[in-house]
Amino acid sequence: MEIAILGGTGDFGEGLVLRLARDAGHDVVVGSREASRAERLAARYRDELAAHDPALADRVSGQPNEVAVEDADVAIASVPPAHLRSTVETVAPSLPTGAILVSPAVALRFDETGAHYERSEAGSTTAVAADAAPDEVPVVGAFHTVSAKRLADLDRAVTGDVPVVGDDPAAREAIGDLVDDVDALRGLDAGPLEHAAAVEHLTALQITLGHHNVTLKDVGVHFE
Amino acid sequence: MEIAILGGTGDFGEGLVLRLARDAGHDVVVGSREASRAERLAARYRDELAAHDPALADRVSGQPNEVAVEDADVAIASVPPAHLRSTVETVAPSLPTGAILVSPAVALRFDETGAHYERSEAGSTTAVAADAAPDEVPVVGAFHTVSAKRLADLDRAVTGDVPVVGDDPAAREAIGDLVDDVDALRGLDAGPLEHAAAVEHLTALQITLGHHNVTLKDVGVHFE
Repeated sequence: MEIAILGGTGDFGEGLVLRLARDAGHDVVVGSREASRAERLAARYRDELAAHDPALADRVSGQPNEVAVEDADVAIASVPPAHLRSTVETVAPSLPTGAILVSPAVALRFDETGAHYERSEAGSTTAVAADAAPDEVPVVGAFHTVSAKRLADLDRAVTGDVPVVGDDPAAREAIGDLVDDVDALRGLDAGPLEHAAAVEHLTALQITLGHHNVTLKDVGVHFE
Repeated sequence: MEIAILGGTGDFGEGLVLRLARDAGHDVVVGSREASRAERLAARYRDELAAHDPALADRVSGQPNEVAVEDADVAIASVPPAHLRSTVETVAPSLPTGAILVSPAVALRFDETGAHYERSEAGSTTAVAADAAPDEVPVVGAFHTVSAKRLADLDRAVTGDVPVVGDDPAAREAIGDLVDDVDALRGLDAGPLEHAAAVEHLTALQITLGHHNVTLKDVGVHFE
């Protein structure tokens, strides 16, 4: 499978690139607004992967966002919520038929008591991506429950459940399978888009629990 | 410790009465609006406990809500959200100094896709209880993540994490300890009341996940 990580230049994007290339064995295109930045980061991730296994380096390349998605089966918009709409609008004309757009972003506000979920007018951050995407592109929310730090640290296990939410059941299933490919993560069907706020709100709770309980920093969540 | 379960006549109340008497070894007063109903239910719970261990039956009695709280260290308002404010207002004058009021209720709407969290104007269901309680009574939200069915079935284990939320840190700690006393539950500090909506929203997600994944019905949530 070919996966584009849009905004693959942040902490969370880095983890997605490394894990999807190494654990899941996919080809990954690092996307950024600037071609030079995308290529520079792809080179860094190739080095990081080669340190684990030289054969892995070939799996990662870098391209501007709108080029990165051209052959993608899955495009993951790993950008801050404030840039989500514009990023989706930028890549929309280049997304191939059948591609799935994934949104892992959550709008949060932080204070000295933890993290607060900021519900957008669209109902959720995933809904912002869905509003900005062309009608024929299925949009799925996923990866919200995974710590960026754990994801990017290939020497540590990344475990836990990942609720997968969106209006297209086949797209939810495909992204659930993709989640299952990453180390010890498990994708769970969380139903249609109207449940995205419940999934995203959990990220705020995880951060707040980590704030008040030092042993719960960067941990996953398991439904069992 | 003496614990009053207000509205201890519903499914969730039943589980709390049985578990707090058996697992945690506390004296439990079943509260209801009608004295006769409270006594009738207390008798039923005594029989259920006696079937496990005859010595347990003495731990449960029944009283009208406002009498049930008179000597309580902890009063748990296990009532539907629509009755929460009136229940708290009814018992407020009888709550002894130092008692903690616990709210396990969540306002939910159900449809064919799962459960939706209904945020109240106060910010959360726990905040409704806090608004209705006297200023000097600490209000804590807890037990939202526990399935009523599992709680009431003494032959099955009840496991999982229970985020405990409220403005009084000492009250959060006391209720966290109370949660720890119940079978394999673990109380977790989730910070001040402003995080109650995040905790309550998780209940909707748990139900929705159970709706879409048959193996996840009535399961707990674990942060690890």
